[in-house]
Amino acid sequence: MSKLAQIVQKLKKQGIEAAVLSDPVSINYLTGFYSDPHERLMFLFLFADQEPLLFLPELDALRAKSVLNISVTGYLDFENPWEKIKTLLPKTNYSKIALEFDNLNVTKFKGLETIFSGQFSNLTPLINHMRLIKSADEIQKLLIAGELADKAVQIGFDSISLDATETDIIAQIEFEMKRLGVDKMSFETMVLTGSNAANPHGIPASHKIENNHLLLFDLGVESTGYVSDMTRTVAVGQPDQFKKDIYNICLEAQLTALDFIKPGVSAAQVDAAARSVIEKAGYGDYFNHRLGHGIGMGLHEFPSIMAGNDMILEEGMCFSVEPGIYIPEKVGVRIEDCGHVTKNGFEVFTQTPKELLYF
Amino acid sequence: MSKLAQIVQKLKKQGIEAAVLSDPVSINYLTGFYSDPHERLMFLFLFADQEPLLFLPELDALRAKSVLNISVTGYLDFENPWEKIKTLLPKTNYSKIALEFDNLNVTKFKGLETIFSGQFSNLTPLINHMRLIKSADEIQKLLIAGELADKAVQIGFDSISLDATETDIIAQIEFEMKRLGVDKMSFETMVLTGSNAANPHGIPASHKIENNHLLLFDLGVESTGYVSDMTRTVAVGQPDQFKKDIYNICLEAQLTALDFIKPGVSAAQVDAAARSVIEKAGYGDYFNHRLGHGIGMGLHEFPSIMAGNDMILEEGMCFSVEPGIYIPEKVGVRIEDCGHVTKNGFEVFTQTPKELLYF
Repeated sequence: MSKLAQIVQKLKKQGIEAAVLSDPVSINYLTGFYSDPHERLMFLFLFADQEPLLFLPELDALRAKSVLNISVTGYLDFENPWEKIKTLLPKTNYSKIALEFDNLNVTKFKGLETIFSGQFSNLTPLINHMRLIKSADEIQKLLIAGELADKAVQIGFDSISLDATETDIIAQIEFEMKRLGVDKMSFETMVLTGSNAANPHGIPASHKIENNHLLLFDLGVESTGYVSDMTRTVAVGQPDQFKKDIYNICLEAQLTALDFIKPGVSAAQVDAAARSVIEKAGYGDYFNHRLGHGIGMGLHEFPSIMAGNDMILEEGMCFSVEPGIYIPEKVGVRIEDCGHVTKNGFEVFTQTPKELLYF
Repeated sequence: MSKLAQIVQKLKKQGIEAAVLSDPVSINYLTGFYSDPHERLMFLFLFADQEPLLFLPELDALRAKSVLNISVTGYLDFENPWEKIKTLLPKTNYSKIALEFDNLNVTKFKGLETIFSGQFSNLTPLINHMRLIKSADEIQKLLIAGELADKAVQIGFDSISLDATETDIIAQIEFEMKRLGVDKMSFETMVLTGSNAANPHGIPASHKIENNHLLLFDLGVESTGYVSDMTRTVAVGQPDQFKKDIYNICLEAQLTALDFIKPGVSAAQVDAAARSVIEKAGYGDYFNHRLGHGIGMGLHEFPSIMAGNDMILEEGMCFSVEPGIYIPEKVGVRIEDCGHVTKNGFEVFTQTPKELLYF
């Protein structure tokens, strides 16, 4: 059954008569068509008693029509899209309508309120739940995106030089990936040298690569709609013993979590497995973010791997495992792989080695 | 007066006692601090009777504290941010609260409803209005971003080869711009060859550059928080007369609009000035988007240059002028400059020549 048919069935079961999808990634997930309408409107209307309808800017309507076998209507910039929607929908008096509350701004919500008069509920949990368990086909795509991330990190390793800046290395990685046919990275590539890596959201700049220090790469690649995300921290020259110790604590935390994951354990337990290693070593205060995030078509999906999330892991869930230790002004380490929960454990999407590599 | 002081003054004048900023670009505009919290929460709280407060993920709190002289509070992933906000705000019983309806999703809106019990109004128009008229300092930054776009297009021109693909040229442009210290392009660079340019939202791919056809570059650069956006269409080899005619109609439309712009005319009139040239030539149906969009810290701001927008242009408004003619399967042309309304006319931010260039 197509994902579109599946969601309509789920909506019917919940007594929901109409749904409006507004997140471009959700629309891509359900239909295979992706477009970012920016501030313009794009809605996928689903109904229990009517055929689905995609409404979007005329600029992208032609492309949508060529790939979709559902009804597609475009609107021009000078048309009032709300008025056009009203004339388009044969029926609007539904009593229960679901909207993507997490991806719908208040202005558009108020616009939809002028069209539908029923009771609105949040569609986001249902979509998130559908996206939570990945199919074999989706896992295959995530593996391919992971392989590309391995390639990108290797290009980064090959570009390490004391004459290069963080930005030079990023430029080289993205250049070679584009030449390999990668349309886009899944987020802004981060290459952080020395104490700049001690900020978990550090910003790469024209810092030359520091000798006898650690160097952090955090990057991902988008491939056929699915994204990868990985982090490696390597040594340049001979970092002192303290930095190597921090690295090894972080690595032990990551390996402990990877080993711990299997169906039946909770997201919070996985976070605790990694965190307790870092806490026991005395650096708990320096690991100031959750252990991981779900991944799929979006970079940050469910499950969130953190304290307080009692979600029980199931086969097919995909997420990152990325402990980090950030000691301001001194050193920053993060090691990250994404993977999927298997029948008995967890298989990662990225294969780049994790023992401390020296350049 | 700082922008933060200005907006608080404007809010007081409107009888608004509290405001919550949620758009990272608005927050950057008002404070000079930029962070993208992704799905996490970041709010800038402004009050008529209290000092402002920035609330954001702990990951970015350190950086915010180092650059801002307002109160900053971070929250950790495992903390409930809504509960933390409640304990943080000394007072919440305001009767009139303004929120950024265009940049606040329904979930976050419902969260804010649990904190404030007063009446909510839309802050977006006030912020948009503040951002509408650029200061001399902002125009200077837009000129610098424009100069960088000129450089980027020149790199693209220098990379034209019948052996190269669209993606190769994009990779080369972005590589060299990164090496020049540009952190990011303002949107995904587009290089579209032949009939691929006939789709105004065409997607670059591994098409080799076509000989005797047109080649379209649409790109922009971000610099010190401000963005540029420009389009040039050039000839590769010897395109036939029809393609050259289409190019010249588009160029005449653009030059006509640029010449027409001055304080006192309306956005709709500017659109009509360009559009009537293309309509008279018989290609009105193939120019299926508005003439332009405002530009500043955001790629798409106000004013929107289109039919139906009666906004009267004033000195300091900045926007794009980008007529296009797209004949499916045949040819696509767009010519775009951004600029600012001056005392007597319009000065563009980009200087790359516009007579048809041959490569």
